[in-house]
Amino acid sequence: MVKMTALFERPTDVDAFLEHYENTHLPIVRRLPGLIRVDVCKLYTMTGEPADPFLMTDMVFSDREQLLLALRSKDGRDSGRDAADMAGTHVKVFFSEIDSEEFVETTEAKSE
Amino acid sequence: MVKMTALFERPTDVDAFLEHYENTHLPIVRRLPGLIRVDVCKLYTMTGEPADPFLMTDMVFSDREQLLLALRSKDGRDSGRDAADMAGTHVKVFFSEIDSEEFVETTEAKSE
Repeated sequence: MVKMTALFERPTDVDAFLEHYENTHLPIVRRLPGLIRVDVCKLYTMTGEPADPFLMTDMVFSDREQLLLALRSKDGRDSGRDAADMAGTHVKVFFSEIDSEEFVETTEAKSE
Repeated sequence: MVKMTALFERPTDVDAFLEHYENTHLPIVRRLPGLIRVDVCKLYTMTGEPADPFLMTDMVFSDREQLLLALRSKDGRDSGRDAADMAGTHVKVFFSEIDSEEFVETTEAKSE
């Protein structure tokens, strides 16, 4: 599988950003052809301070070709345009091939 | 779920880095208590140039407490020390809460 990751810097107006992100941007992302999974990841710091970058979106596709086709589709172009409107240069985009390993029988850590 | 993401800049010696990463670092990561999934993501560019950052590791845990316990465990401390040896300041680490949506009945995009 492959994924496209969008990593957003902390915006000045977090509430306005999230309002647009959740109600306008994500509905476009969900329509991307071939999309298998989307992970919306809200960043936090261990010490409870506002995290920057503050948001990461992982969009998972079966392979490079499907991702490329999604980007070139109408919804892909709309999504790119909307991300630029929303975040300008304050977003970084990465493409990667995923090698995933699951650990079903995890030993849950306990407090000592 | 939550994840810890390590984002590595492209090293000078990619082969030596990957040799250490795969044979020394990942075996420590796999022992982290409470680890549910690890995604090793090799970055690529659409235009085929060497990608920088070039590697992203997502380590998934059930919740913040499990992640914190993993970090504080012996393997967590070993993993942090080894990442510092391997990448120095050329790695960024993010913590995030994941809101995941799966699209089982995807419409696979076709070449036109």
